[in-house]
Amino acid sequence: MEARIGVLTISDRAYSGIYEDESGPAIIQTLNQIITSKWEPVSILIPDETNAIEDAIINLVDESNCCLVITTGGTGPSSRDVTPEATENVCDRMMPGYGELMRKISLQYVPTAVLSRQTAGLRGKSLILNLPGSPKAINQTLIPLFESIPACIDFMEGPFIETDPEIVVAFRPNHR
Amino acid sequence: MEARIGVLTISDRAYSGIYEDESGPAIIQTLNQIITSKWEPVSILIPDETNAIEDAIINLVDESNCCLVITTGGTGPSSRDVTPEATENVCDRMMPGYGELMRKISLQYVPTAVLSRQTAGLRGKSLILNLPGSPKAINQTLIPLFESIPACIDFMEGPFIETDPEIVVAFRPNHR
Amino acid sequence: MEARIGVLTISDRAYSGIYEDESGPAIIQTLNQIITSKWEPVSILIPDETNAIEDAIINLVDESNCCLVITTGGTGPSSRDVTPEATENVCDRMMPGYGELMRKISLQYVPTAVLSRQTAGLRGKSLILNLPGSPKAINQTLIPLFESIPACIDFMEGPFIETDPEIVVAFRPNHR
Repeated sequence: MEARIGVLTISDRAYSGIYEDESGPAIIQTLNQIITSKWEPVSILIPDETNAIEDAIINLVDESNCCLVITTGGTGPSSRDVTPEATENVCDRMMPGYGELMRKISLQYVPTAVLSRQTAGLRGKSLILNLPGSPKAINQTLIPLFESIPACIDFMEGPFIETDPEIVVAFRPNHR
Repeated sequence: MEARIGVLTISDRAYSGIYEDESGPAIIQTLNQIITSKWEPVSILIPDETNAIEDAIINLVDESNCCLVITTGGTGPSSRDVTPEATENVCDRMMPGYGELMRKISLQYVPTAVLSRQTAGLRGKSLILNLPGSPKAINQTLIPLFESIPACIDFMEGPFIETDPEIVVAFRPNHR
Repeated sequence: MEARIGVLTISDRAYSGIYEDESGPAIIQTLNQIITSKWEPVSILIPDETNAIEDAIINLVDESNCCLVITTGGTGPSSRDVTPEATENVCDRMMPGYGELMRKISLQYVPTAVLSRQTAGLRGKSLILNLPGSPKAINQTLIPLFESIPACIDFMEGPFIETDPEIVVAFRPNHR
């Protein structure tokens, strides 16, 4: 089973063409570094609107059968930042550990990482993960998260994702 | 006042007899190591069903008068894992610090500890605590948590729980 | 624009005159140490009642135009402690990082910091922050939080708050 991974850029300014989306491509580039098994990205670019975020996640999970959806953008304290709320609205169960871990990782780089409201959750058999908006912060957080993401997808009976051990070793509690 | 402590094993496979429950007995064994004052366990074994979990917690708190209920199992990302949701449903107020602390402790041992969705909360004058499923992880987390659990029960006017200081020193801010 | 900061003491005993409120004045004293730009406190003292807490926060944000509201008290596990729930009731969006960070800081001093149920959130363009109740713990947590609070208020287009760099350096990701 080939893994499909949703890459969801949430940004008013990238959506309206004020600047180019660099965050979505940064996620795909980092995933290409990490993942050695077969996988395919499904990219979507939307504005910071609750309904648009909810619809995009539902579509990526229920229609495109993504085992993992990675969002970028919309997790700060600005009034337009509503990604965590929209994510929680369409998840069945939450995964509080990922938000905690991403803030802990990012706090090593900038004290304002505490302002990030990133969360993660499960919809059906898919893991939804809010990443930071900046390409640099994406790289800093996404690589260490892959120590546990393949095992999470195993638990939900999804595709077997293999990683390049020189980038990050995927820990699998049931496969040692 | 003798302390009653609910020990709630949540496992489809242990409940249906596919294997024996080792987690509930591991909790009791660890509590016997930790607690030197009088206490009594009230053990229940149930499947991974939201209603069964809610009913068991309500029963342990409201009928059996447990000052502490420790659950084990059902906190991962598998589709049958619903312990945190059921716990939250029957708690009046949540205790986010315990989930954070347990993930922090377990992350020292395995990177997949981030997948644990463990939570804790208060129902009336009782503390409800989700522990991991494996006997090894139970031991790793339960002992350090007893630095603060007796003080929490003091705050709720429950029984005075004493610990063996060679195992763990119970910190009591009001009793120094 | 001068910054107005709400200082909300939540304590049955201070409210009824059993002892004097030391926590509110401790917050103002610490803010005076930290902030070098113009600011003005708006102080309120109320009992541990959900409605009173909600009304006070709404008033400080919607009427007094505070860009920051700092509460003290009511975040423990005692049956009268309802500050986090009341805070969440009147916030549009939550800021989970601050609760995590305050518990992490306080755990360096006392193991019972895990019992703190402190949270933070946003109401309109205002940041609401639950601080611990004791003057000592207020000082330990409030100073490091000001590494990120001015940037948070910048994100919400509030007043530009400057800090004394000998006490704490305010990190501003967009102003370097």
